[in-house]
Amino acid sequence: MELKIALLSGDGIGPEVTQQAVKVLDAIAEKHGHTFTFTKADVGAIAIEKTGNPLPNETLEICKNSDAILFGAIGDPKYDNNPDNAIRPEQGLLKLRKNLGLFANIRPLTTYPTLIHKSNLKKDVIKGTDFVIYRELTSGIYFGEHTSSSDGKTASDSCTYTTEQIDRISHLAFKAAQVRRKKLTLVDKANALETSRLWRKRVTEIGQQYPDIKLEYLFVDNAAMQLILKPTQFDVILTENLFGDILSDEASVIAGSIGLLASASIGEKTALFEPIHGSYPDAKGKNIANPLASVLSAAMLLDYFSLHDEAEDIRIAVEKSIELNISTPDLNSTNHFSTTNVGNFLSDFI
Amino acid sequence: MELKIALLSGDGIGPEVTQQAVKVLDAIAEKHGHTFTFTKADVGAIAIEKTGNPLPNETLEICKNSDAILFGAIGDPKYDNNPDNAIRPEQGLLKLRKNLGLFANIRPLTTYPTLIHKSNLKKDVIKGTDFVIYRELTSGIYFGEHTSSSDGKTASDSCTYTTEQIDRISHLAFKAAQVRRKKLTLVDKANALETSRLWRKRVTEIGQQYPDIKLEYLFVDNAAMQLILKPTQFDVILTENLFGDILSDEASVIAGSIGLLASASIGEKTALFEPIHGSYPDAKGKNIANPLASVLSAAMLLDYFSLHDEAEDIRIAVEKSIELNISTPDLNSTNHFSTTNVGNFLSDFI
Ligand SMILES: CC(C)[C@H](C(=O)O)[C@@H](O)C(=O)O
Ligand SMILES: CC(C)[C@H](C(=O)O)[C@@H](O)C(=O)O
Repeated sequence: MELKIALLSGDGIGPEVTQQAVKVLDAIAEKHGHTFTFTKADVGAIAIEKTGNPLPNETLEICKNSDAILFGAIGDPKYDNNPDNAIRPEQGLLKLRKNLGLFANIRPLTTYPTLIHKSNLKKDVIKGTDFVIYRELTSGIYFGEHTSSSDGKTASDSCTYTTEQIDRISHLAFKAAQVRRKKLTLVDKANALETSRLWRKRVTEIGQQYPDIKLEYLFVDNAAMQLILKPTQFDVILTENLFGDILSDEASVIAGSIGLLASASIGEKTALFEPIHGSYPDAKGKNIANPLASVLSAAMLLDYFSLHDEAEDIRIAVEKSIELNISTPDLNSTNHFSTTNVGNFLSDFI
Repeated sequence: MELKIALLSGDGIGPEVTQQAVKVLDAIAEKHGHTFTFTKADVGAIAIEKTGNPLPNETLEICKNSDAILFGAIGDPKYDNNPDNAIRPEQGLLKLRKNLGLFANIRPLTTYPTLIHKSNLKKDVIKGTDFVIYRELTSGIYFGEHTSSSDGKTASDSCTYTTEQIDRISHLAFKAAQVRRKKLTLVDKANALETSRLWRKRVTEIGQQYPDIKLEYLFVDNAAMQLILKPTQFDVILTENLFGDILSDEASVIAGSIGLLASASIGEKTALFEPIHGSYPDAKGKNIANPLASVLSAAMLLDYFSLHDEAEDIRIAVEKSIELNISTPDLNSTNHFSTTNVGNFLSDFI
């Protein structure tokens, strides 16, 4: 198979980790006789520095002309504490999602037996946890109208959802549940928000088309508790943009290392794959960042093109590296390996 | 001291747990020579059943003519899954907060050494956790405009904040930090929301009036992780309504039992005290619900009127009951006591 992949490594540790994912994909291409071509493009703080724009047109064009996007990380602390800053790295990612129509963010969460002891949660609580979050990604409050009064004393954000926006991701989530444990939990705040009531109504209706799926509802405040109280109760979690943002980051804590968690953002035409960790500026350039989340994002990319054997090859290599303790300092405090070392091991193993 | 207390026990387990808090307050009044008078009023599902209104005018009047409100719980599952329901129990609480101007919800979180093993988090992670969340309670998206298009295909909620709304709770939070460990963490989503940028700007300015306080910022998604990754890093957490709702429920998991967590909602004229657990309909009428959160809410009420010795008496009694294992089934699975038993022990001990 030939695949054109846009490489948006972004800020902070983004470049070093995606470099390992590319290495691994190259090894897969060689082993299985595929041709993967990578085209680099700037996004985020680095793009602002070069062009003044967190998502230059050229980058968007490269993405549109690619089959998929491999994304690193975005963000730089120098923009965070200046609320007056009109241009921010994150806009690059938000605009990219919107422009490419990447409406569904998919974040799987499983535990690795060999890493279970690293979690802050007790082993008995997390053992067997295996769920996936479907987060709506191109609507809701992050994409609503943002206003600020001229005297600077009032600010507003608006959150809107349409049935169409709810439907498309809901169908994906129900279908995912069908090939999993057949349970879907809708998270909303229907006791306080109109958009949540629309979600609840609509998802209930759609659920009738999937009679094999057990549909449950949780208020978002309760969901934030339940994730920690009993993570094994979940199979597919479906939710809107902001709630998904918060809950998926919270859920990342369960596995014991955020350095292992990958995500896919799916649209109608293309898809983007990225680790869920951020740009981690303190580790930038130190060759200590864990590349596994980026490498596992590459595996999700392969799955997306139905290259399941290839994806499995990557996952086996990742598990082997963990088993052999060929790991970066976050997983291996005594005898650790560098980002590049881990990438080399994985590509050699494949 | 004479105190007129409105008793809004509400739905589910609300009545049984507040009854124990009243017992305990009566014991305190007797011991310390105070006069506490209680006036019952309906709110929530029970009020809807009786009057069609989740917050009858009479209830509001009783609250306005009281020095403080002791609140039980609100909510009934029969309203939850019917998004078309125009009248819902929760409106009673939201309207009460708005009408009484209860703009600051205060939720302290500490761990009890004897209960630490009950948490899903590891002992080393939570030992020494001691923070308090200041959640803005009468503005933001729960109180914004809620609209639904006539064809039922679009819904919107709007979130607005003014500097005035931010200022009043921020000053309370900074002052709380001054008598604690002098650290304040503002939680927002300033990389995506205009209201969050206003919060960040304003709180930064206010912070200059409190040079002794170390001010930090966290994005809400990161905060949801940090609460579980390192709960001991927090002292005072300040945040807007929705984020506070989610994070404070999440935080409740740390202590090992939600049945122990109390909250105060403070306004300019009056204040309301309630357990953070909900109406827990499955336990209703079974005399098994844990009354400690309600009893500890009563202690917060006493603190509010500077009756610190009295509040301390309650806390000592609570700790004693835990130590002696005179506890409801959630804390004591083998030899448990009933809700009434625990209430009796506490009032006798005082
Ligand atoms: C960078 C930020 C705008 C983004 C979001 O909140 O969507 C990030 O937190 C994420 O979850 O991908
Ligand atoms: C009942 C509900 C509207 C309420 C809220 O979200 O404010 C509750 O969850 C709370 O936290 O007190």
